[in-house]
Amino acid sequence: MPDRRFYSVSGPFTLAELAEVAEAKLLQAESGTRLVRDVAPLDTATPDDVSFLDNPRYADAFRQSRAGACVVHPDRAGGAPAGMAMLVTTTPYRGYARIAQAFYPDPAPAGRPTARDAIDATARIGDGTEIGLGAVIGARAEIGKSCRIGAGVVIGPGVVIGDHARVGPGASLAYCLVGAHVRIFAGARIGEDGFGFAPDPRGHVRVPQLGRVIIGDDVEVGANSTIDRGSGPDTVIGDGCRIDNLVQIGHNVRLGRGCVIVAQTGISGSTVLEDHVVIGGQGGLAGHLRIGAGAQIGAQAGVLRDVAPRTSVGGTPAMPLRQWLRQSAILARLARKRSD
Amino acid sequence: MPDRRFYSVSGPFTLAELAEVAEAKLLQAESGTRLVRDVAPLDTATPDDVSFLDNPRYADAFRQSRAGACVVHPDRAGGAPAGMAMLVTTTPYRGYARIAQAFYPDPAPAGRPTARDAIDATARIGDGTEIGLGAVIGARAEIGKSCRIGAGVVIGPGVVIGDHARVGPGASLAYCLVGAHVRIFAGARIGEDGFGFAPDPRGHVRVPQLGRVIIGDDVEVGANSTIDRGSGPDTVIGDGCRIDNLVQIGHNVRLGRGCVIVAQTGISGSTVLEDHVVIGGQGGLAGHLRIGAGAQIGAQAGVLRDVAPRTSVGGTPAMPLRQWLRQSAILARLARKRSD
Amino acid sequence: MPDRRFYSVSGPFTLAELAEVAEAKLLQAESGTRLVRDVAPLDTATPDDVSFLDNPRYADAFRQSRAGACVVHPDRAGGAPAGMAMLVTTTPYRGYARIAQAFYPDPAPAGRPTARDAIDATARIGDGTEIGLGAVIGARAEIGKSCRIGAGVVIGPGVVIGDHARVGPGASLAYCLVGAHVRIFAGARIGEDGFGFAPDPRGHVRVPQLGRVIIGDDVEVGANSTIDRGSGPDTVIGDGCRIDNLVQIGHNVRLGRGCVIVAQTGISGSTVLEDHVVIGGQGGLAGHLRIGAGAQIGAQAGVLRDVAPRTSVGGTPAMPLRQWLRQSAILARLARKRSD
Repeated sequence: MPDRRFYSVSGPFTLAELAEVAEAKLLQAESGTRLVRDVAPLDTATPDDVSFLDNPRYADAFRQSRAGACVVHPDRAGGAPAGMAMLVTTTPYRGYARIAQAFYPDPAPAGRPTARDAIDATARIGDGTEIGLGAVIGARAEIGKSCRIGAGVVIGPGVVIGDHARVGPGASLAYCLVGAHVRIFAGARIGEDGFGFAPDPRGHVRVPQLGRVIIGDDVEVGANSTIDRGSGPDTVIGDGCRIDNLVQIGHNVRLGRGCVIVAQTGISGSTVLEDHVVIGGQGGLAGHLRIGAGAQIGAQAGVLRDVAPRTSVGGTPAMPLRQWLRQSAILARLARKRSD
Repeated sequence: MPDRRFYSVSGPFTLAELAEVAEAKLLQAESGTRLVRDVAPLDTATPDDVSFLDNPRYADAFRQSRAGACVVHPDRAGGAPAGMAMLVTTTPYRGYARIAQAFYPDPAPAGRPTARDAIDATARIGDGTEIGLGAVIGARAEIGKSCRIGAGVVIGPGVVIGDHARVGPGASLAYCLVGAHVRIFAGARIGEDGFGFAPDPRGHVRVPQLGRVIIGDDVEVGANSTIDRGSGPDTVIGDGCRIDNLVQIGHNVRLGRGCVIVAQTGISGSTVLEDHVVIGGQGGLAGHLRIGAGAQIGAQAGVLRDVAPRTSVGGTPAMPLRQWLRQSAILARLARKRSD
Repeated sequence: MPDRRFYSVSGPFTLAELAEVAEAKLLQAESGTRLVRDVAPLDTATPDDVSFLDNPRYADAFRQSRAGACVVHPDRAGGAPAGMAMLVTTTPYRGYARIAQAFYPDPAPAGRPTARDAIDATARIGDGTEIGLGAVIGARAEIGKSCRIGAGVVIGPGVVIGDHARVGPGASLAYCLVGAHVRIFAGARIGEDGFGFAPDPRGHVRVPQLGRVIIGDDVEVGANSTIDRGSGPDTVIGDGCRIDNLVQIGHNVRLGRGCVIVAQTGISGSTVLEDHVVIGGQGGLAGHLRIGAGAQIGAQAGVLRDVAPRTSVGGTPAMPLRQWLRQSAILARLARKRSD
């Protein structure tokens, strides 16, 4: 269930209503008045939740799911467990996206500005904490002791920040829980929407991003870097990580302890770094990978597969560092020979 | 003619004055008192405008142009149409840059701050729109209904934003017309100067950027991404595009409908993407290219040539995806063999 | 000695105190009460300073240094000059980092906000300069004449900006001295901490960054670009440089005059560019390199070695441009052949 500090749920909706929203057909027509209260992934869904099956990888989870309803492709509806209502459509991810929008609509505008405090009356600020000029602190935010929040920083509703944190000018934090002794530099963007949508030639359909960013203790996030919040699971940055400037970290990424990410690196959604991984500048990692503890990824490498612990890789597509160096040498020799 | 919502023109200037500004020689000395009222490209210039010829690619446009005057290299002055005055210099782009600065000087500072409203009195804000704390809305800006403008957002003079838009904290928009249902995330920079100057060992000369950014409906622009305004033509983002974080889009780039641009991609000036192009993370596109509809460009690819519709490319320099995969495989085999 | 406009020093400390801070052993136990007043590099240290030796490259500087004390590995303590006290530890860079933190602690928070002026009373603003709404100007900052400082800009204590400068909305400047006629675009981050720490599996230890950013006249810095301040030496941007959007410039980098750095390029720490170097989009340069005057570095190139003046390089690892083009051609031919 999405964190109620950040997300309030609409509904409940009947299955008939959801079928209409999803442009799907409810196979169990007799269940049209049944109520559904939330969205959830297949493995954690309860009979009150609606889920979806898009990627065949999750077929097992589908068969074992306790979800009350599921958006599926007609070809897969046959494998449903007993009691699960089927919302059938040829574009199940799109259907799910529309249902998730119904449960979690974009927050409505509050209307024309009225007299408000830059620090919301319900926010809690620890002793000895400095709030810079022009900073805006949202409702129910909690900031620890002895922090320095820079000028023009924007901290969203419900955000929690530990003691002795430092946030540079103009940074913004939303949908996140941040540890102690964290240093976030100017212009960093924590907790914006992940890049999530159901691609569609008629118009891509936004998938509400319902997770958070969890940042451990003693983490640094460089200037103008971006860390998107999770789509449902969280994006997690382990204790002691050092993230340089202009780094992009996608939704649901998990970094272990003490990872070092040099400037302009990009880590795609759902990739996991174990402890003490190091990535050189401008490295790029595909999504859904696992990078083993202590692995070293060279500058500008393009990593398309898992990397074993304590190995070094380089090149695009990335390969063991020694192999990449050898390739570069061989190719240079070939080029010299042919030009004789 | 540059959009008068954003640019006010100085002048008129005599040809003699412009010759001095451009450090050029006016071939038709008798025309020194003739007045010129604006700058324009060769193909749209009128007898009241001054234009320039630098790239030989535009020699035809030069011969057919109706421009009243033109900055040219002495070697090319011979091809001028009748009635066009010649401002001759060995560095015509530099000369033009100085003339354009004369017509469009950087806006003068308004002097020390006085009591002003964060929302300018001449701005129009639609019903139900929320303006965040510390946001600044410039003169004559128009923001539609039911928008959410985040804390600390800066919206420049004359900017137009459609209904139901959402702009994240600390973003800034200038010189742009933005559609409805657009979502611009925190820290995005829309409408800054393109990277335009006449290179010169004595000091590069800035070329005033006189175009706009036009953003269609239902577009998303990710956190800390940058979209420069056009140099004279516009930079255009088609309906339904999805642009991820930390993406750079250069001046005069045109994106068709529904394009998907993954994080940290860079698109150089004047490149055109037709509809539904997809670019993976950290992709790089050279300038002045055409990428066909539905083309797919791999992560980290470096595209130096046009890409045909519905093809997939990868690698640097980019090539058909299958060829790139084959190359990678062959090279890996070679490296293994030589190391035996 | 760090610039006292930006950094105030704590201490003095006794050698016994520093040994404890550094978790090191003081070899000259009888010197435990001697006072040390500052940190400094080996070559400029005086008898009042403590320095460190980590990289063997600096063994000569060590032998000739006048530093009063030095943090060293036990294996190297033997080479010390007479009179230099030895703080011995197997992790000398970590030990130095802790000592530097003692001399230069992170500025303490100023406590809860009270009525303050957005423009500090001790700041000096030149005639005819415009300060945007919501901009914050720190203590003792000096801004020249006829500047335009955008809305929401944050200028730190002691920053100096020359005449006719333009700073775009939401940019932030700290620890820097900026020349005249400079244009800094929206969201740029000047003077944030360099990426400096002593790597340690128990927790990386931050090394205080004690230098500045020095920006010459007539420089442009693009939107959302980041230029870190020096670690002790300065980061320097020469007159007339043009830096595009989303560029990262690491600590201690030095750019000569008139360099052109295209978007999304990253330059690692301590690399030096001589005059009129051009780097294409998404270029990456390793640290501690020297790039000769007039060199041209291709888009997406990955430069791992010095580049000679007036040469062109491309590819990763970067090589002479002609060789890179030849390699690409040969590889393409091989791939075609093998697929027959």
